Amino acid sequence: MADKTISKAVISRLPRYYRYLGDLDRAGVERISSNELADLMKVTPSQIRQDFNTFGGFGQQGYGYNVQFLREEIGKILGVDHDHKMVVVGAGNLAHALTNYNGFNNIGFYIVGLFDTNPERIGKKYNGLEIRSMDELKEFVEKEDIDLGILAVPVASANEAAAAMIEAGVKNIWNFVPTDLKIDMSSDTIIQNEHLADGLLQLSYTITAANESHRK
Amino acid sequence: MADKTISKAVISRLPRYYRYLGDLDRAGVERISSNELADLMKVTPSQIRQDFNTFGGFGQQGYGYNVQFLREEIGKILGVDHDHKMVVVGAGNLAHALTNYNGFNNIGFYIVGLFDTNPERIGKKYNGLEIRSMDELKEFVEKEDIDLGILAVPVASANEAAAAMIEAGVKNIWNFVPTDLKIDMSSDTIIQNEHLADGLLQLSYTITAANESHRK
Repeated sequence: MADKTISKAVISRLPRYYRYLGDLDRAGVERISSNELADLMKVTPSQIRQDFNTFGGFGQQGYGYNVQFLREEIGKILGVDHDHKMVVVGAGNLAHALTNYNGFNNIGFYIVGLFDTNPERIGKKYNGLEIRSMDELKEFVEKEDIDLGILAVPVASANEAAAAMIEAGVKNIWNFVPTDLKIDMSSDTIIQNEHLADGLLQLSYTITAANESHRK
Repeated sequence: MADKTISKAVISRLPRYYRYLGDLDRAGVERISSNELADLMKVTPSQIRQDFNTFGGFGQQGYGYNVQFLREEIGKILGVDHDHKMVVVGAGNLAHALTNYNGFNNIGFYIVGLFDTNPERIGKKYNGLEIRSMDELKEFVEKEDIDLGILAVPVASANEAAAAMIEAGVKNIWNFVPTDLKIDMSSDTIIQNEHLADGLLQLSYTITAANESHRK
C-alpha cells in the first residue's frame, strides 16, 4: 500500500478525509459522492478524485463512495487499523495536558509512559500514570513495544532529550518543542515537528481577511 | 489584499511558506528560486508559482524571489505585521503549557489573560499571569482589545465556555477541545478547531509506510 511516490501534500490531506468520514459514518451517512464530500470539506471534487486515485480510487460507483469502506481503507493507509503505544518525554504541563486529551485514544493511540530527568517529578502521577526516570526509558521502550515518543521538554533541553530518546530505541518522535532538532543523521529515527503556530497563523489570516472585508 | 476567492488549500499552505522563509532569512539567504524553495519544502515548483500567483506573484525575477520581501508580504496576508492579544479560557494544564510556549510570541501573538470558573484556580498564577474569573471576561476583552480566545476546557464544558466567550465579545476562537462546538449560528464569531490528532495521523502514515518498505 505504501508507495514512496505518494506526495507529501496528498498524505497531509488524508487525516482530514479520515476525520470527515468518521463524522459522516457516525451521522449514519452510508454513501457520498465526490461532489458532496468536496462541498462539505470546501475543496474541489477533482482534488478528491485525484487524491483517491493515488491509492487506486476506492471504487467510486455512479452513486458515490461507501463511507464506512472508504474510512476503513484510509485508516489502513494511515496505520490506525491497530493500536499504538506512546511515551512522553518531559513530564511538564504539556505532558499532563496530553495524558488528559481525548482525541488520541479515539484513533488508537495510547500514552503509556511519562519520563523526566527532574527528581522532583519522578514518582508523581498524572492521571494515574507514573512519571519515570529517563534511565528507565530504554528498558520500557523494549518491554512495552513503544511505537512513538512525544518530545515535550523546554527548548533548552530539546536536543539532549531527543538524543536520549533515539539512544533508548524510540524510532518515531513527535516533537512539540518549537525548535529545530539537530539529530544524528545516521539514525533512522523519524521526526515530525508539531507546529502549533501554523494553526494560529491560519486563524490570523481569517481574522485579517474578515477585518479587511468589513472595511470595504 | 484579502479576497474571498482564495481557496482554503492555498491559505493552509501559507503558514508553512512563512516558516520556511523565516528560516532562510535567519540563515542569511537573500534570494531563492521557486525550484530551490520547492526542493526544500518537498512540493512542486508549479504549486509554489500557482500559490504565489493567487496573491499577484510577489515579483519573481529571472533569478528568484527576494526572501525578506516575500516573507514580509506573506506576513501581511497572514496578519502578523502587527501584534495580537489572546486570552485562554480554561486554566488547566494545557493553558499552563501554552503560557510557556515560545512559538506564539515569535509571530506576535501574546497570551495576556487566563480565565476559569473554578474558584480554586482563580487568583493563582501561571508564569506570572493571574487566573481570573469568567465574570471578568467581558470587561477584560473590551479593555484589552482582545483579538483571539483559546478554548482549553474539558470536553463536557466546551459548549458552555464557548457561548460565554461569544457573549463576552470574543470574535475569534481557537478551539483545542477535541469536540464539535454547537454555536449560535447568528453569531459572527470565527471558530477554528485545532486537530492535534491530525499531526499524529500523518506521523502514523509515515511509520506505517516505513514498516511496509522494511518488509518488502
